[in-house]
Amino acid sequence: MTDQTITAAIVIIGNEILSGRTQDANLAYLATGLGEIGIKLVETRVIRDDEAAIVATVNELRARVTYVFTTGGIGPTHDDITSECVAKAFGVRLRLDPEAVRVLQAHYPPGFLNEARLRMAHVPDGATLVENPVSRAPGFQMENVFVLAGVPLVMRAMFDGIKGKLRHGAPVLSRSVTCALGEGAIAKDLTAIQARFPDIEIGSYPYFRAGGFGVSLVSRGTDAGRLAEVTEELKAMIRNLGGDPREEQAA
Amino acid sequence: MTDQTITAAIVIIGNEILSGRTQDANLAYLATGLGEIGIKLVETRVIRDDEAAIVATVNELRARVTYVFTTGGIGPTHDDITSECVAKAFGVRLRLDPEAVRVLQAHYPPGFLNEARLRMAHVPDGATLVENPVSRAPGFQMENVFVLAGVPLVMRAMFDGIKGKLRHGAPVLSRSVTCALGEGAIAKDLTAIQARFPDIEIGSYPYFRAGGFGVSLVSRGTDAGRLAEVTEELKAMIRNLGGDPREEQAA
Repeated sequence: MTDQTITAAIVIIGNEILSGRTQDANLAYLATGLGEIGIKLVETRVIRDDEAAIVATVNELRARVTYVFTTGGIGPTHDDITSECVAKAFGVRLRLDPEAVRVLQAHYPPGFLNEARLRMAHVPDGATLVENPVSRAPGFQMENVFVLAGVPLVMRAMFDGIKGKLRHGAPVLSRSVTCALGEGAIAKDLTAIQARFPDIEIGSYPYFRAGGFGVSLVSRGTDAGRLAEVTEELKAMIRNLGGDPREEQAA
Repeated sequence: MTDQTITAAIVIIGNEILSGRTQDANLAYLATGLGEIGIKLVETRVIRDDEAAIVATVNELRARVTYVFTTGGIGPTHDDITSECVAKAFGVRLRLDPEAVRVLQAHYPPGFLNEARLRMAHVPDGATLVENPVSRAPGFQMENVFVLAGVPLVMRAMFDGIKGKLRHGAPVLSRSVTCALGEGAIAKDLTAIQARFPDIEIGSYPYFRAGGFGVSLVSRGTDAGRLAEVTEELKAMIRNLGGDPREEQAA
């Protein structure tokens, strides 16, 4: 609801996520980081290591958002096909990048930079490298598409490195109020408050914990003053309905 | 690569996942459960609580796969818009379901089934209920689209209840071999093995752990005999390259 014109989408590439073998750990990190610099994440897709799927997804999303971030599929093995698929999506060929070769040559002992590892020095024609301070093999940026590693430690280091280059929006701030009331008890009054604060996005998230059930009301927006106002209204609503509002550390 | 004609897609609906506030816990559970009954998960999308996004995503995916599963957005508050959006996607109206009303009436103390909670008894015209043994408010099935809760405890119970109704494919089996070699060292031989086993999907997943780095090779397919063959070839390849293959509990 806030006026955020800088948008992003994430494409998580990997059969291992869709088989349930691996729990994705990249979405939450990227989502949090993008929110901090005021970029609105509008969609995330998890797709298979499949050329048609990667090409179509990258092309659809890069036309729709300011930035696309892909994770996964840039290693040296047969199932690492992201780089050639992104080249196909842009209609360009893969080229061997001399700087990437230099980085890999410096990293591996003599004789270890074999043909498979050299695949990691290929980027689409027109791309620039994204540094990998962890395991060296770089990612790349092709226009508004950032191609990052899938291993979380590497992905995070790559993203932290490019974050400062991205266009920033107004940072999204959030405040969270929790109470032990049911969602159904607060829904009507909450709808009325949301209607009075169209510039604030209020999310209602029920929880079931060992200590009982309740709901967290998370307000997000770019104006700290408006967030303070809506938080006071939410607390008053909860007290009015017999609850005990607690402000939580918002995320 | 296995011949799986029964396919699925998951749509995770919720701003809280895209803001980074909440780590999704539903994809891995559904992915594992679908694999067990031989349904191939081809894509997962995480989208916002936004009508246009929900309608477009549901319509695109339900035309492409055997089953669509949505999670999230079926509670009583203003940001729970999944049910009306699915009705819109199908071009039908929402109707109050008498059985859902009965379930909710039996669950709440007298006087607590207010207008907001009654929203949870509305389903698209033509839908059938999906039972919720945890917190009672049902999900529903509309043609090939299953609309489930977002709270993991509830989502799991709903999915476990409908699993037996789904068309099953040949269960996907997997075996995993791990070694302390780098991906780049095994890539060439691995490509050759994958080429000889087109019916087996071999994934190569590097890891960095406290004890060092290495790679897990996960073979997936529907034929236990072929999986045993490929596993022996992978072990021989690793030994041949100076590594020590260990079979892991595959997931």
